Parts: sequence; structure tokens; C-alpha cells
Amino acid sequence: MRNLNEVTITQAVTASLAGCEDARLRGVVMKLVEHLHAFARETKLTEAEWAKAIAFLTAVGHITDDKRQEFILLSDVLGLSTLVVAQSHAKPEGCTEATVFGPFYVADSPQYAQFDDIANGARGEPCFVGGQVRSLDGEPVAHASIEVWQADEEGHYDVQVPEADGTVTHRARGRLHTDADGRFAFRSILAEPYPIPHDGPVGKLLEALGRHPWRPAHLHFMIEAPGFETLITHVFRDGDRYLDSDVVFGVRSTLVAQWVRHEPGTAPDGSPVDVPFYTLDYDFVLNRAAAAVPA
Amino acid sequence: MRNLNEVTITQAVTASLAGCEDARLRGVVMKLVEHLHAFARETKLTEAEWAKAIAFLTAVGHITDDKRQEFILLSDVLGLSTLVVAQSHAKPEGCTEATVFGPFYVADSPQYAQFDDIANGARGEPCFVGGQVRSLDGEPVAHASIEVWQADEEGHYDVQVPEADGTVTHRARGRLHTDADGRFAFRSILAEPYPIPHDGPVGKLLEALGRHPWRPAHLHFMIEAPGFETLITHVFRDGDRYLDSDVVFGVRSTLVAQWVRHEPGTAPDGSPVDVPFYTLDYDFVLNRAAAAVPA
Ligand SMILES: [Fe+2]
Ligand SMILES: [Fe+2]
Repeated sequence: MRNLNEVTITQAVTASLAGCEDARLRGVVMKLVEHLHAFARETKLTEAEWAKAIAFLTAVGHITDDKRQEFILLSDVLGLSTLVVAQSHAKPEGCTEATVFGPFYVADSPQYAQFDDIANGARGEPCFVGGQVRSLDGEPVAHASIEVWQADEEGHYDVQVPEADGTVTHRARGRLHTDADGRFAFRSILAEPYPIPHDGPVGKLLEALGRHPWRPAHLHFMIEAPGFETLITHVFRDGDRYLDSDVVFGVRSTLVAQWVRHEPGTAPDGSPVDVPFYTLDYDFVLNRAAAAVPA
Repeated sequence: MRNLNEVTITQAVTASLAGCEDARLRGVVMKLVEHLHAFARETKLTEAEWAKAIAFLTAVGHITDDKRQEFILLSDVLGLSTLVVAQSHAKPEGCTEATVFGPFYVADSPQYAQFDDIANGARGEPCFVGGQVRSLDGEPVAHASIEVWQADEEGHYDVQVPEADGTVTHRARGRLHTDADGRFAFRSILAEPYPIPHDGPVGKLLEALGRHPWRPAHLHFMIEAPGFETLITHVFRDGDRYLDSDVVFGVRSTLVAQWVRHEPGTAPDGSPVDVPFYTLDYDFVLNRAAAAVPA
């Protein structure tokens, strides 16, 4: 434990974990220490670079609050989020694939009924979204909870544009349930590509790395139903210029869908629309939870 | 760039760095991504664990302010600080060794003259510290800047115990200069072992890992002089029970010294002391800066 050098330090730190009674925690921290140390050795990280890294993480921490999660953003742009999602969701072919959670989910999303307009004043071209939630064997999943969230036409989520008094009005975000046939339908706005928040430390990092901050247009979905694995995913808009350079590496071919443009006329819910509008039809297939006995 | 799995994601992220014009930054981030991804794969990190890690880093960021640096603490307890210091200071035998910087340095330390009492009211048994700063060839280094900082008898640095109005009075911390013979002397208090701040996320981590938060008693020194490499180090008190389990892995045998106890009487500076007191004599040997031409 004395006179440790850049090689012997690793063994000293892992030895210090001998008293840890949580075997999983001990194993994870050991691997963390091994890789962190190997990273510092292989790069011959200097004290000045170490100090820059401390300052960077401090800035990431300080810009993070209940409305902005810069550590998730950092994990996303480094591909860690996609990696963890990918290795956590090996599931049967035919199930809807998962993708990254992103930093803009909120737990207290407003409740809506079928055909409601979840935009709630968010600006963008009208878009009518509908589909069905099914199990892998084709059974409709009735009363599944569907949470959806998306950016407005300026690329902002509601939490990014608080009111003058600092509160957030939830727009282009809501929770609804499938009907007895597993069907859902709601009105919202057209999904557009947007840059992730890049006025903070992660944005500065991307710029220094020569990377753009854009994500292809998408809707976020979280779908929950008893007996099924919770599905956290996106639906991406086909044709988007950023589909092959998503800054958070989240695109999956099976999640790319057509947003169909329509001239002013009658919407899928029967209402008249006096401007051009879009429709998106997308079905979700849930994986049964491991513990659940198939019907 | 689509359909990335837990293996192909790594290549996708490193490929995204192709446009980075700063070769050093690109190389460091590539290695970071490789090790971060390998860590997550080898541990099969789950989404729940990932979310815990995000929450942990967020807590580390939120407790960090201009008086408390929890990220440095985290780097220290994971041995990263010692590793970086060790690989940055290969120097000739005979030079005083460096050790970790720690989180308690402040830039605006008060100025003192020789023999001043830098304790400035900090509680602890009196201690008279003196020594000489020399180059490796034995030349005294005159007018070197010496910054010293230490904890009080309760184990607190001044920045940890602000006044009622939130300001900090600098205690047991100061800057002085060597005289024409490279000598320095000051009065302070006895160094005692102390636990690193463990009421925050790093403390909780240590507890979960079954590790104690203690450091052996020490004085921090930063010594600067034109033409020499800046020396950031500690002097550790011999006999301390934590010398072989320093929570930040900073102990080096050559930095362990004797604090000598004396009955009430006359201090090294000639002043009378009516309580028992300690003396510490320690000389520092600076390494010439790489660019400097030896005299
Ligand atoms: Fe998004
Ligand atoms: Fe210290």
C-alpha cells in the first residue's frame, strides 16, 4: 500500500475491495478500476488532462437539474446508452426493438383519451398517429399504457422551454391506453430532426470532436402492460438526412417508418383539417416478461 | 450506423471521431470509448445499474461547489489520481516524490512571513515546522514559494467549516517563501489522521465497498521556484495507523517523517510555549524543469 506506481496502483485498489460484501458491486467496481486505470496508462494521461476531465465532469454535473440530464446526454453521445440497451434486450425476432431512453422523459406526463391532441399547443404540422399493440403471437394487448414524447418544430422538448415563471407546460407529450383491441390513436405534430442540447459541456465536446449534434426525426414511446417486458423505443421518420449519423447511435432499421403527407381534408379520426397533415401508422409487438407464463 | 449491437457500437463511435482535428483529443476519446464499452460489456451492465451510475454521477456533480470537489475525491479513492501523479513524475532518485493533490487546495491562500503562525486560530497542538528547499545538486533554492495546507485536530480543512455567514476564514493554510539559504520555518498545529468527507456520494460508495474513509496524518505542500518542476506532495506522520491503508493510496515511504514531541519550553523560533508541542524538520529536493539549462 506504499510507494504505488502507475502499475501497482491497480492491484492495490482492487485489493481494497476485499471487504465488500456485495459481490456484484465488487465485481463491477473492480472492472471499472481496471479499465479506468488501463485507459489512463495507455493514453499516458497527464495531470493537466486529468484536471480538464475533472472540470468537464463538474460542468456536466452543474448543468444537470430536474429538467436537463447532461450525464445521460454524455452516455448517449459516447454510445454507452445504445450498448447497454442492446445487451439488455435480446428478444425473439418479431418483437419491436428497443432503443435509447434519452434525457427528456418525465414521469408525470398528462393523461389523454384516444384521439386527443397531445400537442397541447406545441408548434408543428398536424400529425395523426395510430397503431396496435400486440404480443408476439398476434394477440392484441388491451389497456396497455403508452407514453409518447417528442420535440416541436423548433426541435425543443417542452422541458427545454419553461414558461416565464419557470414551470413547464407539458406539450407534445402524454400517456394514453390501448383499447380492447390493443389499438391506440392520437393527434400530435410532425416529428422533425433536432440537435441535442449543445450549449453545455457535451455540446462543446461534440464540437471539439468534429461531430454534429443532430438526431433524425423520431417519436419516443414507452409501452407497459402487465406480463410484458416494458418497451422503450423510438419510431424514426424515413428519409431523414440524419438516419445514418444519429449523434446518439440509436437508429434501428425496423424502427424506421413512413410519415405520409396529406392535403387538407378529413383526418383519420373523421375531423376536418384545413392545412396539410401527416399520418403515421405503426404497430408494436411486446415481448412477454420472463416470469410470465404464456397464455 | 444502424442496428448497432453491443459489439459494433464501439467501432461506430470511434468512426464518428474521424473528423476530429485534434489528434490527441481523438486518441484519448477513442481509448475512453474502448475501455468504457469493454467495461459495460464485460460486466454485462444492466439498464438499472446504468441508471444508478447516472444518478451517482449526478449526485457527485451536485455536491461539488467551489469549496468541495467530489469528483477529485472520487478520482482519489479509485486510485486514478495516484496513477496519474505517478506516471507524470518520473524524476531522478533523490528528488522529493510527488503525491496526490487532494480536493482542499485553494488558490488565494494567505501570505505569511518566516516563523509566522499559519494556524490562524485552527485548533490543535502547536507544531513548529522547518526545513530547506534544495536542488538535486545540493544548491539551496532561495525565495521558493511554499504553500502548505492541513486539517485541524477535528480533521477539518478550513473550507469545510465556513463561518455563519458562509465565508471561509483561512486557517492552517498559508504561503511563505524560503530565505536566501533556501530555509523555511512556520508554526502550525499537529497533523492528525482524518476521514475524507464521507457524507456525500463518495462516502456512500466507500461504505458499500466496505472501505474506511481515513487518511494518515499529513501536511500538504506545493513548492514552486523558477527553473524547477512544481512539487505537489505531502509529508506523512510516522506511526500513523492509516499509513498502510490510506483511502486515496497516496503514501510514499520517502515522504514519511518524524513529528517530535516536546514538553513545554522553548520553541525552535526562541518563543516560550507553555504546553507540549511538536517539531517537524523536513527538506525538499526539487527537480529542475525539463526546459531549464542547469546552472
Ligand atoms: Fe428525442
Ligand atoms: Fe489532506
